[in-house]
Amino acid sequence: MLTMKKTDTINAAIVGTGFIGPAHLEALRRIPYVQVLGLCEASPELAAEKAAQLGIPRAYSFEEMLQDPDIHVVHICTPNFLHYPQSKAALLAGKHVICEKPLANRAEEAEELLALAKEKGLIHAVHFNLRYYPMVRQMKALREKGELGEIFAVLGSYLQDWLFLQTDYNWRLEPDKSGDSRAIADIGSHLLDITEYVTGLSLSEVMADFSTVHKTRYKPLKAIETYSGKTLQPEDYEEVPIHTEDHATVLLRFTNGTKGSVTVSQVHAGRKNRLNIEIAGSKANLEWNSERPNELWIGKRETANGHLLKDPALAEPAAGQLISFPGGHNEGFPDTSKQLFKEVYAAIREGKPQEGQYPDFAAGLRELIICEKIVESAKKDAWVRI
Amino acid sequence: MLTMKKTDTINAAIVGTGFIGPAHLEALRRIPYVQVLGLCEASPELAAEKAAQLGIPRAYSFEEMLQDPDIHVVHICTPNFLHYPQSKAALLAGKHVICEKPLANRAEEAEELLALAKEKGLIHAVHFNLRYYPMVRQMKALREKGELGEIFAVLGSYLQDWLFLQTDYNWRLEPDKSGDSRAIADIGSHLLDITEYVTGLSLSEVMADFSTVHKTRYKPLKAIETYSGKTLQPEDYEEVPIHTEDHATVLLRFTNGTKGSVTVSQVHAGRKNRLNIEIAGSKANLEWNSERPNELWIGKRETANGHLLKDPALAEPAAGQLISFPGGHNEGFPDTSKQLFKEVYAAIREGKPQEGQYPDFAAGLRELIICEKIVESAKKDAWVRI
Amino acid sequence: MLTMKKTDTINAAIVGTGFIGPAHLEALRRIPYVQVLGLCEASPELAAEKAAQLGIPRAYSFEEMLQDPDIHVVHICTPNFLHYPQSKAALLAGKHVICEKPLANRAEEAEELLALAKEKGLIHAVHFNLRYYPMVRQMKALREKGELGEIFAVLGSYLQDWLFLQTDYNWRLEPDKSGDSRAIADIGSHLLDITEYVTGLSLSEVMADFSTVHKTRYKPLKAIETYSGKTLQPEDYEEVPIHTEDHATVLLRFTNGTKGSVTVSQVHAGRKNRLNIEIAGSKANLEWNSERPNELWIGKRETANGHLLKDPALAEPAAGQLISFPGGHNEGFPDTSKQLFKEVYAAIREGKPQEGQYPDFAAGLRELIICEKIVESAKKDAWVRI
Amino acid sequence: MLTMKKTDTINAAIVGTGFIGPAHLEALRRIPYVQVLGLCEASPELAAEKAAQLGIPRAYSFEEMLQDPDIHVVHICTPNFLHYPQSKAALLAGKHVICEKPLANRAEEAEELLALAKEKGLIHAVHFNLRYYPMVRQMKALREKGELGEIFAVLGSYLQDWLFLQTDYNWRLEPDKSGDSRAIADIGSHLLDITEYVTGLSLSEVMADFSTVHKTRYKPLKAIETYSGKTLQPEDYEEVPIHTEDHATVLLRFTNGTKGSVTVSQVHAGRKNRLNIEIAGSKANLEWNSERPNELWIGKRETANGHLLKDPALAEPAAGQLISFPGGHNEGFPDTSKQLFKEVYAAIREGKPQEGQYPDFAAGLRELIICEKIVESAKKDAWVRI
Repeated sequence: MLTMKKTDTINAAIVGTGFIGPAHLEALRRIPYVQVLGLCEASPELAAEKAAQLGIPRAYSFEEMLQDPDIHVVHICTPNFLHYPQSKAALLAGKHVICEKPLANRAEEAEELLALAKEKGLIHAVHFNLRYYPMVRQMKALREKGELGEIFAVLGSYLQDWLFLQTDYNWRLEPDKSGDSRAIADIGSHLLDITEYVTGLSLSEVMADFSTVHKTRYKPLKAIETYSGKTLQPEDYEEVPIHTEDHATVLLRFTNGTKGSVTVSQVHAGRKNRLNIEIAGSKANLEWNSERPNELWIGKRETANGHLLKDPALAEPAAGQLISFPGGHNEGFPDTSKQLFKEVYAAIREGKPQEGQYPDFAAGLRELIICEKIVESAKKDAWVRI
Repeated sequence: MLTMKKTDTINAAIVGTGFIGPAHLEALRRIPYVQVLGLCEASPELAAEKAAQLGIPRAYSFEEMLQDPDIHVVHICTPNFLHYPQSKAALLAGKHVICEKPLANRAEEAEELLALAKEKGLIHAVHFNLRYYPMVRQMKALREKGELGEIFAVLGSYLQDWLFLQTDYNWRLEPDKSGDSRAIADIGSHLLDITEYVTGLSLSEVMADFSTVHKTRYKPLKAIETYSGKTLQPEDYEEVPIHTEDHATVLLRFTNGTKGSVTVSQVHAGRKNRLNIEIAGSKANLEWNSERPNELWIGKRETANGHLLKDPALAEPAAGQLISFPGGHNEGFPDTSKQLFKEVYAAIREGKPQEGQYPDFAAGLRELIICEKIVESAKKDAWVRI
Repeated sequence: MLTMKKTDTINAAIVGTGFIGPAHLEALRRIPYVQVLGLCEASPELAAEKAAQLGIPRAYSFEEMLQDPDIHVVHICTPNFLHYPQSKAALLAGKHVICEKPLANRAEEAEELLALAKEKGLIHAVHFNLRYYPMVRQMKALREKGELGEIFAVLGSYLQDWLFLQTDYNWRLEPDKSGDSRAIADIGSHLLDITEYVTGLSLSEVMADFSTVHKTRYKPLKAIETYSGKTLQPEDYEEVPIHTEDHATVLLRFTNGTKGSVTVSQVHAGRKNRLNIEIAGSKANLEWNSERPNELWIGKRETANGHLLKDPALAEPAAGQLISFPGGHNEGFPDTSKQLFKEVYAAIREGKPQEGQYPDFAAGLRELIICEKIVESAKKDAWVRI
Repeated sequence: MLTMKKTDTINAAIVGTGFIGPAHLEALRRIPYVQVLGLCEASPELAAEKAAQLGIPRAYSFEEMLQDPDIHVVHICTPNFLHYPQSKAALLAGKHVICEKPLANRAEEAEELLALAKEKGLIHAVHFNLRYYPMVRQMKALREKGELGEIFAVLGSYLQDWLFLQTDYNWRLEPDKSGDSRAIADIGSHLLDITEYVTGLSLSEVMADFSTVHKTRYKPLKAIETYSGKTLQPEDYEEVPIHTEDHATVLLRFTNGTKGSVTVSQVHAGRKNRLNIEIAGSKANLEWNSERPNELWIGKRETANGHLLKDPALAEPAAGQLISFPGGHNEGFPDTSKQLFKEVYAAIREGKPQEGQYPDFAAGLRELIICEKIVESAKKDAWVRI
């Protein structure tokens, strides 16, 4: 018997264990040389309970964790308003940081974080996991190869129904916890991130129209987690006014003259979590849908259209490296985080950032800038330059 | 043997036999008490040739046809710029008129036609055939029954690829024949018509962004018909500037506060003729796609989504009456014209218009007004009230 | 004005006006040089009523019609047990015959009809309309071009739900009107016809297993037409034993060694009329589904799969000639009959049969032989050679 | 800081690290209280190399591992011919065993293993992971609730293309390593397992027809792993005869009289790994497809059909417990193993088998019996009782 030495293990701590924290945990455990060593929660009791439940060795407060020299990387999985202060504190403590999106509440905070991370020479990333669906990477690779040609137009939508009912409630509805924008900031940011990522184009102007279909909502008298609200039957509610958007459409203009639009909604019945993007080029048209993520539609004018199933043997190399299983073996949402972390931890192991390879704080900052301009446009009812 | 008397036959003449005229002809022949008696074409020779080919008894010039007392109904199937003068002349000659869309080049012309038709007491209709897909009528019927609830948002697109290449050319690219708007006027008008028709809402404001991806196109030195261009390999082209839009997105606001958007394009590779509309309501969400017209998707929050196949036994009665065949027996584009004409000719037989039952000149006028406002918005880069 | 002479008009009579007779009528009216002159029904009263309703000039008994020298072609659209005697009588009267399937109750009757038609030099056809979906013809054309390669296997199914409930009833359930086999004879025959037609292979052996899931059914005390049963709410039923199959699977062997299977059912809830066929070859795999008839899936090993939308610009020429409208303009069930009749009437006009071009009595005979062998296999529980 | 004690950790060893071993590894790591402590490979060098690569602490020979008292559970992930002897040795060493399918080469071996596991009081399971797609469990739960009614028929297929070309080669083509049956044993066993599992019915008779479309194949002169063959371009091949089936169809009869069929193939171009099953009942019809595993189609006769997206809020409780993420967040192939192992390790933790909860050796034995009968039927060309 040979016993392995685990000299090259990288230790991570996860801050926050609502919906997304455990997703980070599971994804990290799938990477051989990463160990999730610690967990932070709002109270010591909750931290201990969750650590036991999730099998994580160390449970502590955020501040204790920062002082643990064994922790190399911190995953910020708390509600939005904590992303900036916690990321900043972690960087100052010398930890690499992987932050949930949005990176901060305001673009200038994100700018500060980006500068700080660079100054400290630490690895920084934002969990824009949708980039890691192999078919999203495939679209990017095809565009880079020139198989799309000149891009004529982009048409995107991201539709959900978890806030469909007036009785659906969540901290994301409260601007002090989640920011001034909801549908755009929460899901629009993913869609706009992959739009620029896949097309290689930069947005230059936006024109937005927001709507809040539920002007008030019934807030339950106890806290509930993201996505779990729909199964609760609270006995007691408080009616509260809602100021953030349930639905938005944004006209897009890119620096090269390309145009497009995106629509986001959290009140579309039957759309559980459906991002759809269609990128029309002068050589082909690509369409991808996150509810059938292993498929890519390829529109052609002069031949039959193409329908590509995720398959390492058929994908472009850049997409193939995000595929762990043979063709027809569906991979999904949890696999995207695994692939993202594999690329980020490879940079951590190498000890140097890989700009452009994974979504870093610059990507997080970019989305905050775009979201702020979209909110500004919706308020002004006019085009706003980015 | 009993020989039937054809005393109640209604006689129609078709003006123009490009792409859509023969579609009118075939549809009319499927209605027992209608006879297509006459045909008009640009020249007597062409008229005679087409009449022989299509089995139509009488071939004449437009003016001769107007003087034929046997003709009760005139179908205007010529290029757009002729719709107004020919419809006017036909009404003045006392004929009922079924006009291709757009009804005219300018809204005020359409207004004049509507007034004239009313004054003369003649039946008038516009060939907005998409209303006659049974699943489109089904959406309207479900909305009228309250099964959609309050409408939260509308998301539509109409994508084609028949003008995808710079070498694709057609009279619709020429403003003097087709008007100042192309994608919006040609296919956007269908989409906006069914949007208002299905939702029962009225547009109040539009904000449009147009793009012309091919700033010039190569015009062949001989005439070609709509849709047939793609198969030609012209040896000789002239490069001409293009001023009408290949692609447009329009933000929509309705009088009741509902919002939405539509995107139209004639340069989306692989989209042959794909209208997609999603209408999100407070009780359900409906999606329909013209490339799979016999299917209706019904989004639900608290149960499985629904997927309805066209079936007279399952459709609402108002939709069922547009279905000629049992469930699973696909009906398509040619059947929509048949169903539209059945409703219009029933009104002709009854001798009185059925407002709201079929798309009449008021519907044609409405689309011209909307298109003009959209074009105005695109020019001003600002919201325009309707 | 030029008045056309209708010297080359071909006159047809339709015998029987249940579900399929009116479908023949509408399809025929779409062909310029064909006139549906006469109609026969079970009684003079019914004939007169239907003729008035359908706009057909002459209404008579079957015998009267045979004596009408103006009738050139007879369409047999009556219940199955009448196909043989009526086809025979029509041929003896010197009429061309287009018969609904099955051509007869027994193969030897079909053989007699085929011999008689040949002897008389008359055109004969069976309404195997599924061959006329453009994508079915496309599959055949691709196979003929060698794009399938060697055929490895065939997998087909034809599923319906119109006899799903024990209370569903129709003359097709009664062997004296419809024959000893039901699901196989009624829909299996279509599926097996296109299997041999598309692949170019000949069946050599079959092994069948039948099941009758409703051993008895509730027969209403008044007659109802095919497919319309599902909407009736009869007050009074009689429980009758059922001897024909609701469901069957048949293993197939072809003369060249290729294998496959087909499954047919009339009791599959939610399947309205869904034929699905997948033909796996050594170069590609084709799948087609009659509920989305304008689409063809093309499976590939070493590239993305293909998805072809019906489009005359993309189809093989042999398929393109069955397409009346541009890409994306859905054509469906009614269009198949139009295309079939166009080919048969072209032969009538030419005055000579086009063997192999359209399904003639030889095709009708072939299906009867295959069905008889399948029934024999189901009874013997063993392979039977064809 | 609280440091957790890992007193209840269960330690696993994985035997074999071809295609499926690493899938076991990743899945196990996602379960908090399981540690993959050891790995066995064909040689000490390979074991050490793989252990380092996969981050597994201990690398040893199979025999060494059996003697390691820290190992509680052994995962047998080796080629088929080793399943029986290794499972037996592991049980004799007092280890719980999770074996890849097939459990053995012959049913009597599996019977011996089942008896041995019971005698030893050890937990035993077979990796029939397809049962763990939430929508498969949903079908079972719906059937148990009576929402399917009486089952009329079953129609299944499992199609792949990884052995499509004559140049595709793998140890699974060699009977001494993989057994006498290939497509049926390898993928048919999964399909038949979920058929009985979902329907709750027992097969009583089978009638099979096999075909080997490539009578010979070109065997490369070096070993290649399952599924990876398609990307290799071997320079040197040896032509070898093939005796196992590329394709098979099997007619099925169940003890209660229900009938059905399954088709399996490894030579269907474009089908990467597509299991499709349709279960027709007297109240509804269910269809599920492994290439879109998060969706379930629900056929209905008297309403629209249903289309259920995986969503813990909409699933039956038994299916909901297999779902880790909210609606619309795709889960796939890797998640099935995680869910299976969660149920098996829960039994290990409890210290007692949960019959019927997860697929145990009885399920493994059942599939071997069925496969043997299918092979016997194919040889005899006749029905064989089970």
